[in-house]
Amino acid sequence: MRAGTGALTTKRGGLSGVAGVRAAGVACGLKKTGRPDLALVVSDHPAAVAATFTLNRVQAAPVLVSKRRLRGGRFAAIVLNSGNANACTGRQGIRDAEETAAEVAHLLSRPVGQVFVASTGVIGRPLNMEAVRAGVREAARRLSAKGGAQAARAILTTDTGAKETAVEFSVGRRRVTVAGMAKGSGMIAPHMATMLAVIATDAAVDPGTLQRALGEAVAGSFNCITVDGDTSTNDMVLCFATGAAGAPPLRPGTSALGTFRCALEQVCLTLAKMIARDGEGATKLAEIRIQGARSVREARQAAEAVATSPLVKTTLFGQDINWGRVMAALGRSGARFDPARVDLSVDEVPVVRRGLGLGPRAEAAANRRLRRREFGLTVALHAGAAAARLWTTDLSEAYVRINAGYRS
Amino acid sequence: MRAGTGALTTKRGGLSGVAGVRAAGVACGLKKTGRPDLALVVSDHPAAVAATFTLNRVQAAPVLVSKRRLRGGRFAAIVLNSGNANACTGRQGIRDAEETAAEVAHLLSRPVGQVFVASTGVIGRPLNMEAVRAGVREAARRLSAKGGAQAARAILTTDTGAKETAVEFSVGRRRVTVAGMAKGSGMIAPHMATMLAVIATDAAVDPGTLQRALGEAVAGSFNCITVDGDTSTNDMVLCFATGAAGAPPLRPGTSALGTFRCALEQVCLTLAKMIARDGEGATKLAEIRIQGARSVREARQAAEAVATSPLVKTTLFGQDINWGRVMAALGRSGARFDPARVDLSVDEVPVVRRGLGLGPRAEAAANRRLRRREFGLTVALHAGAAAARLWTTDLSEAYVRINAGYRS
Repeated sequence: MRAGTGALTTKRGGLSGVAGVRAAGVACGLKKTGRPDLALVVSDHPAAVAATFTLNRVQAAPVLVSKRRLRGGRFAAIVLNSGNANACTGRQGIRDAEETAAEVAHLLSRPVGQVFVASTGVIGRPLNMEAVRAGVREAARRLSAKGGAQAARAILTTDTGAKETAVEFSVGRRRVTVAGMAKGSGMIAPHMATMLAVIATDAAVDPGTLQRALGEAVAGSFNCITVDGDTSTNDMVLCFATGAAGAPPLRPGTSALGTFRCALEQVCLTLAKMIARDGEGATKLAEIRIQGARSVREARQAAEAVATSPLVKTTLFGQDINWGRVMAALGRSGARFDPARVDLSVDEVPVVRRGLGLGPRAEAAANRRLRRREFGLTVALHAGAAAARLWTTDLSEAYVRINAGYRS
Repeated sequence: MRAGTGALTTKRGGLSGVAGVRAAGVACGLKKTGRPDLALVVSDHPAAVAATFTLNRVQAAPVLVSKRRLRGGRFAAIVLNSGNANACTGRQGIRDAEETAAEVAHLLSRPVGQVFVASTGVIGRPLNMEAVRAGVREAARRLSAKGGAQAARAILTTDTGAKETAVEFSVGRRRVTVAGMAKGSGMIAPHMATMLAVIATDAAVDPGTLQRALGEAVAGSFNCITVDGDTSTNDMVLCFATGAAGAPPLRPGTSALGTFRCALEQVCLTLAKMIARDGEGATKLAEIRIQGARSVREARQAAEAVATSPLVKTTLFGQDINWGRVMAALGRSGARFDPARVDLSVDEVPVVRRGLGLGPRAEAAANRRLRRREFGLTVALHAGAAAARLWTTDLSEAYVRINAGYRS
């Protein structure tokens, strides 16, 4: 724990807890089911903004448009739709994303260069702009300081529930909030479906400082439930700072900024775990911890190999510690180690010591841990001093059912 | 097609078609089900031998023992067991593998250094040596020139059927055979369960020439249904040449050797496709073809990303061409290309042209192809002149069922 984290308090709800923010979520007909599919989040005054985007070579129109906006460093609003990713839609897709932003800018009387766009859903279908225009108008009418929960619902696709979180802390005499909403689902690792997150704070932070803090927080959270580079066409994490709490600006080197970073990291990690837990068909959340690797890179490679192995993931679903599959995944990960020195445990229950199984009784004890919804799988390679951790889910029959049928 | 391939004739059966080879398959109790679980394949006279092994850092005892044997270049027999991988079993595992080989050598009165061992099954359990010894004795008694089919059954784990193939061609006035048996299953790509193959020929080839030919054949076959480096602890492809057909030795630079290489490649490719088709829970076999990549490496990267994506694989199972998932997989593959130039087709049915979908009618036509058991998915990147192809299967609910429950 860093200095200052003791001052963090978890709050109920999400974006609605942030001063200077209004939001709305509506159903405009992009989803055949009639569920909410368009969200609008607005900062009453120009806010500082930071964002991270997918590294995929194939990038959706809203990603390309929002990337351009980021250079300005200022945020008025973000409009997000579900049901259609507006990806692989060519020039028409860009025009549609720009028109959506322009419509929002017009309705709110704000500069179009400060209006961001995000989409999630099926790839390769043109956006139904009639529905989007109607949705944007209705969302603008319904904007409210209490609209965060509605917005959080309107960005979901195969998620089973909305994902919101908020954290509060003091800067001088003011209470400051960092809050966010996200949508995830997909098998997360290794082949994430679109992940979107919008984080807002009423702290005062300049865009450069905000961008550095967000980059750090994303690396230790969202990028630990996904695998670097394994990104969808539409992934986006956007964070804006309204400054509306009235607290003094957070400056580099101050303890207040340190506390803010911890808050941002906690919000990101909470949302990331919510996404992992809600992975398509997931019944388990496992923290994969690699210790004693020769380098952080190798620790990460080993963690990724274990976390993404379908054979390991089905073992977790089956609640039977077939640890040989973990050994096989480690062996092909690229990490250097001596198989005869590897220790493995489920939570604190040892299953393998020095490369050899500890027998049926140890496995039975480990299997009792696997019956829980959340547990840790710890591997000690005894090859060095580097460590890494990742979160992964099990692979269930429901995952296949969902993905073989999915076309929203 | 290379020169000389016209002379290849497919034969029925497998190892039993090769002169100088005897085989047997028995049930010795390693599998709880009582199914055959021990195979013995013998060359009546010392044969030349070649082999390729798993690249996994965690290697099973029989792999370590057989690797040592390979240096001698001579083959008397191979004993294979299913039901237990003898992997992660430490020094005891090595002793057990050596003892199994010694038992075979003793019974056949052949040098122990020419007896190879292979295992497949659960990792991390000591081998039941009482059962193995009894199995080896029974197998030695039952050795027969017609025992190939029995042997092919005895090496299976979750495979749904035995895998055998044979090819014949002429060298001078003699007919020469190349034949093989294999076991596969597991999801093949990306996380292959153990793959074993034994290939025999009655051609006369020296060990060095045989090793080069086998390396080439494996690269274009078994390594195109798996992904390089994604190997289990036990994978092994072994090929031996008895010379018993009485044909003159195959020398480098001769057309006879060229024909032999084609025959070996065909046997490997046939077995590899049998393995892919029988992938756990697989209902489809798809040939992923990447064209127009900037380099062979990038073509391979792109093919692997598509072939191993769970989202693509569930799309194939669902028989609905959600081509955006293919685009997303290409985009994160590391291959360099312009998304706006990509063409994609299912068999000869175009679905995407210049990065844009061709609409519902094209998709409906493609979906009719996806209803077949085998089809091709062709991607033209238009970024260069390099190509690659891989075979993959769909991802079905049955895969999860099999792997969540599997402990033979």
